Amino acid sequence: MLGRPRRLAILAEACFTRLAAKTAVGVLRYRPEEAAAVIDSTRAGTTAADCIGAGGAVPVVADLEAAAARGADSLLIGIAPQGGELPAAWRAAVRAALERGWDVIAGLHAFLADDPEFAPLAARHGGRILDLRRPPAERPIATARAAALDALVVLTVGTDCNVGKMTAAIEIQRALRARGVAAAFVATGQTGMLIADRGVAVDALVADFVAGVMERLVCEAAADADVVLVEGQGSLHHPGYAGVTLAMLHGACPAAMILCHEAGRTRIRARTDPASGPAIPPLAEVARAYETAAAWVHPSRVVGAALNTSEIGPEAAHAALERASAELGLPVADPVRNAAPLAETILGLHAGRAAARAAARGRRTEAS
Amino acid sequence: MLGRPRRLAILAEACFTRLAAKTAVGVLRYRPEEAAAVIDSTRAGTTAADCIGAGGAVPVVADLEAAAARGADSLLIGIAPQGGELPAAWRAAVRAALERGWDVIAGLHAFLADDPEFAPLAARHGGRILDLRRPPAERPIATARAAALDALVVLTVGTDCNVGKMTAAIEIQRALRARGVAAAFVATGQTGMLIADRGVAVDALVADFVAGVMERLVCEAAADADVVLVEGQGSLHHPGYAGVTLAMLHGACPAAMILCHEAGRTRIRARTDPASGPAIPPLAEVARAYETAAAWVHPSRVVGAALNTSEIGPEAAHAALERASAELGLPVADPVRNAAPLAETILGLHAGRAAARAAARGRRTEAS
Repeated sequence: MLGRPRRLAILAEACFTRLAAKTAVGVLRYRPEEAAAVIDSTRAGTTAADCIGAGGAVPVVADLEAAAARGADSLLIGIAPQGGELPAAWRAAVRAALERGWDVIAGLHAFLADDPEFAPLAARHGGRILDLRRPPAERPIATARAAALDALVVLTVGTDCNVGKMTAAIEIQRALRARGVAAAFVATGQTGMLIADRGVAVDALVADFVAGVMERLVCEAAADADVVLVEGQGSLHHPGYAGVTLAMLHGACPAAMILCHEAGRTRIRARTDPASGPAIPPLAEVARAYETAAAWVHPSRVVGAALNTSEIGPEAAHAALERASAELGLPVADPVRNAAPLAETILGLHAGRAAARAAARGRRTEAS
Repeated sequence: MLGRPRRLAILAEACFTRLAAKTAVGVLRYRPEEAAAVIDSTRAGTTAADCIGAGGAVPVVADLEAAAARGADSLLIGIAPQGGELPAAWRAAVRAALERGWDVIAGLHAFLADDPEFAPLAARHGGRILDLRRPPAERPIATARAAALDALVVLTVGTDCNVGKMTAAIEIQRALRARGVAAAFVATGQTGMLIADRGVAVDALVADFVAGVMERLVCEAAADADVVLVEGQGSLHHPGYAGVTLAMLHGACPAAMILCHEAGRTRIRARTDPASGPAIPPLAEVARAYETAAAWVHPSRVVGAALNTSEIGPEAAHAALERASAELGLPVADPVRNAAPLAETILGLHAGRAAARAAARGRRTEAS
């Protein structure tokens, strides 16, 4: 992970739950072999599986020392809070990790490498600070060139933040690969970057260049892939983040979108009090909004939906999938339980495009 | 300007035209008393009025020395090119200004104060480098609180970049003030900041915080104004910039929008070759796109249009205004020629809101 194999101590103090510790959850689900321990003193003695339903027997321990005893050699900040600051109570753990000479990996907006206390500690003890949100030194302006790619570009879009856009993209990519398709995954957030070992945290870019960087990422991924699954961010209906969402949509110029939603969520998490957030519109209305916004630059269709049913049982999940599918008139699946319906939908689109291109080549050959 | 009265040498070498030197044009139109000279050796001997139709007798000179002879004491970079880099050929002029101990003011994405050559020169000779796009150190996430303001918030939106959104906001603000209304102007780009002596270049913010900073700017301006005119940026149909446009729209939560367009422009300037840019949709379709996008967070209406007719004569301008007004069914004016129709429209909205609030207060008083 990020340059070498690691044994991570994942810091999620007092918040090691599926919703609060998004970065920890992503790494434990997709790179569990690099997780030595999770630090959360309020849940010490349990396992990752007990707390979040992923990560198997990875132990939850009380502190950094206990994580070191489990063989940890790097500290990962396991959260990405709104605003992106390091919680003050976590500074001691970062200090302790750096004093052991560990690398510290973070996806915060506040860069740890710029911290006047942490930077000298890293230098003195030989560890590195990896700020995943540090933007690349490029200033590209998008020109919609991703619209001309031969590869089928698919963007996951959402009704809100933290509904499963990254997970849907990864699960569909895996299902396509299992079917022999050259499918790439483009990571656009800190958790996706940890899993894919590449990508850019696009919400930390200078606003003018979000679409341009997306365009570059998608074009690069398309160079050796037939299908490119792009991790979306935010939501067009989120009062704080819709700009990032739209810039990504226009930069990626996807031919198809997968609408992601968490079963049972009715309000956007835009305020400290979740009950006061704006209502999430009906799924069909959200899908129409994405199609409208895409068409301002390049037309695109929502071709299916990914429903995150991790908080409900199998029967309730089945009913929720049925309802969503009826509402949208589209295939709907929870890709963690079963990505096949969405993978098959995308496979069908891909085959149709390939056939259309072959026919066009045939016509050109006849005409010449 | 920016802390003290100035005598500016405005650098616009080989590009002192209305379209290419946007920053220069804005300053010459609204702060001509602080312009000592414009530097453009290809037009030396002419005046600002000759070249751009604004700035009166401000002389165009060949170099920095000639500008100094006209009393200049600061250098302003007069352009804001796509990508935001300083043209390599302009480095010598920046060096020469710093060697004279002048301040250098720039609105580029590439910060001059971070340049390894310029920073020491400024320090040695006592000048300051003012990078207008340097973002403030805040990380606010928008929550749509501008929607609850008593003040009438009006955002200028556009069919493209560089069509007159800043100019429309300033001209309408002035016309409202002339009518005795407490109208504020919120500057969101480097040129607006030079004119207003405050504001933030929002396109240079980290993408996650554009809406949040807009929200703060609008709420602050509303504290002592009844009408807040907000300078918009970009366009929902521009492949590179729509994300910034949407974040501003959701952060400002305007009650009304003024759609800005340049008469005769048919394509978005999104590529090096202007003829290959995407077509600008019909004005009514663009207006609908802004209303659709606003409603994802807070409903808003396009209540009028500002047509930039600076490149055509008065008769053609009159015909263009008539056509646009018929197409939109709304008041349309070139606010530089005559801002009254748009000011009156906004005044009417403002009066209607004030009356509605007074009636609501009356009902509450009766009920209690």
